[in-house]
Amino acid sequence: MSRHEGVELANRAAHEVRERARTLRLTGPTAGLAAGFVQANLAVLPQALASDFLRFCQRNPKACPLLAVSEPGQWSLPGLGEGIDLRTDLPRYRVWAHGELVDEPTDVVHDWRDDLVSFAIGCSFSFEEALLAEGIELRHVTQGSNVPMYRTQLPTQPAGPFAGPLVVSMRPLRARDAIRAIQITTRFPQVHGAPVHLGDPALIGITDLSRPDYGDAVPLHDDEIPVFWACGVTPQSVIAASRPAFCITHAPGHMLVTDLKNHQLAVL
Amino acid sequence: MSRHEGVELANRAAHEVRERARTLRLTGPTAGLAAGFVQANLAVLPQALASDFLRFCQRNPKACPLLAVSEPGQWSLPGLGEGIDLRTDLPRYRVWAHGELVDEPTDVVHDWRDDLVSFAIGCSFSFEEALLAEGIELRHVTQGSNVPMYRTQLPTQPAGPFAGPLVVSMRPLRARDAIRAIQITTRFPQVHGAPVHLGDPALIGITDLSRPDYGDAVPLHDDEIPVFWACGVTPQSVIAASRPAFCITHAPGHMLVTDLKNHQLAVL
Repeated sequence: MSRHEGVELANRAAHEVRERARTLRLTGPTAGLAAGFVQANLAVLPQALASDFLRFCQRNPKACPLLAVSEPGQWSLPGLGEGIDLRTDLPRYRVWAHGELVDEPTDVVHDWRDDLVSFAIGCSFSFEEALLAEGIELRHVTQGSNVPMYRTQLPTQPAGPFAGPLVVSMRPLRARDAIRAIQITTRFPQVHGAPVHLGDPALIGITDLSRPDYGDAVPLHDDEIPVFWACGVTPQSVIAASRPAFCITHAPGHMLVTDLKNHQLAVL
Repeated sequence: MSRHEGVELANRAAHEVRERARTLRLTGPTAGLAAGFVQANLAVLPQALASDFLRFCQRNPKACPLLAVSEPGQWSLPGLGEGIDLRTDLPRYRVWAHGELVDEPTDVVHDWRDDLVSFAIGCSFSFEEALLAEGIELRHVTQGSNVPMYRTQLPTQPAGPFAGPLVVSMRPLRARDAIRAIQITTRFPQVHGAPVHLGDPALIGITDLSRPDYGDAVPLHDDEIPVFWACGVTPQSVIAASRPAFCITHAPGHMLVTDLKNHQLAVL
């Protein structure tokens, strides 16, 4: 096997997921697929709004860590993978008009416009892989559910029409694991980085951990502390609240699978 | 001013503290003196015990981070500062016989023996400087008292006669500051490094935060979490419990002031 073939094989898992989505052999969630590869949130906005949204991301890097931004009209993202077609390579999309969900298609070829700018935003799957590799139990993974997410009273820094509260994900951890998780996720600033809060949920405006605003509740044991990370649902909820005339996002859990490896995102 | 004179001036603060201690113009605590310079705990043991104690430090690096170990009989530590005389350069010492405190002299020239091995162990003063520089309030500094310290139910890894529970220091911090403090102290593995616990004190066997085993209690506000670091009192208490026939330590708060700068200990 040549060195070139070796590289091709190594990247095949990510490429194959995109290929399967493109050919409609995959229309479900991407969690657990192409282990080791970076998965990204997708937001696609008309160019008229793109500058405001880019500024929003720049001002709120923990919630909106940008992995890549396309040229207007461009549906490839060469920095994230060879041959990516953003119109077809995610298993499912959401198309929005004036803040209302109007379609959940498996491709957006016919919705595409020359003025669209695409944003690929880091996702906690990447740092969760590093936590699991360290032997840290993640409750929502153990119970096979979605991570619980909560709207907080922590504001984001607004830009143009984009504004709203920070959304956080929560993972219950014992103190020792919480300290280790802070060290590990600090190494991954492009996928939300270190937690934004730990301990008393009321201090950030969360009244009931058993009733998340998104995802599923998980039990919190007596010897555990809730640890909160900025969440990629923040840009989605901020975009929805701004009611743009038109935009496209990934359907929840149906992510863009890139050719980047999670470990490549570690700064140390 | 020559470059050489500049270096001499920069190091003068630490050298001057040692000089004042040596000439008995300083017999009090060293907290706040020679700002920016590393201060160290001192433990001096007969060579027959030194190997066990060195192994104890190696196995418990968070409680016993070694900055330097002398040759047997040597009273200088060139790696920590030019001209250090360990027999005279601390403001006050404690001399122990069979685990009993027998003297608190201002020098140990006449107690010195050719078989003594000296251990300089990192001290939390160094990371506290980095936390204060970040604008993080340290309650015991604000109220001008000693940091509260507690014996825990966390065991140390024993070596030879040296064994006993971990002693921790506690600093109340808001969640955001706790997360930042974990990041900052992680950079300082030679001065206790990251915390060993945060949150519920009972989980590590502390029943009442208002009654520390050493130092002074500090108030804990409603929006704060107690954060616990391994403490340099651990080796002292472990040595005392082992009742060596002879040993010397610094008197509490009367540290060895070195020529190292605190920022030099940062690994990143």
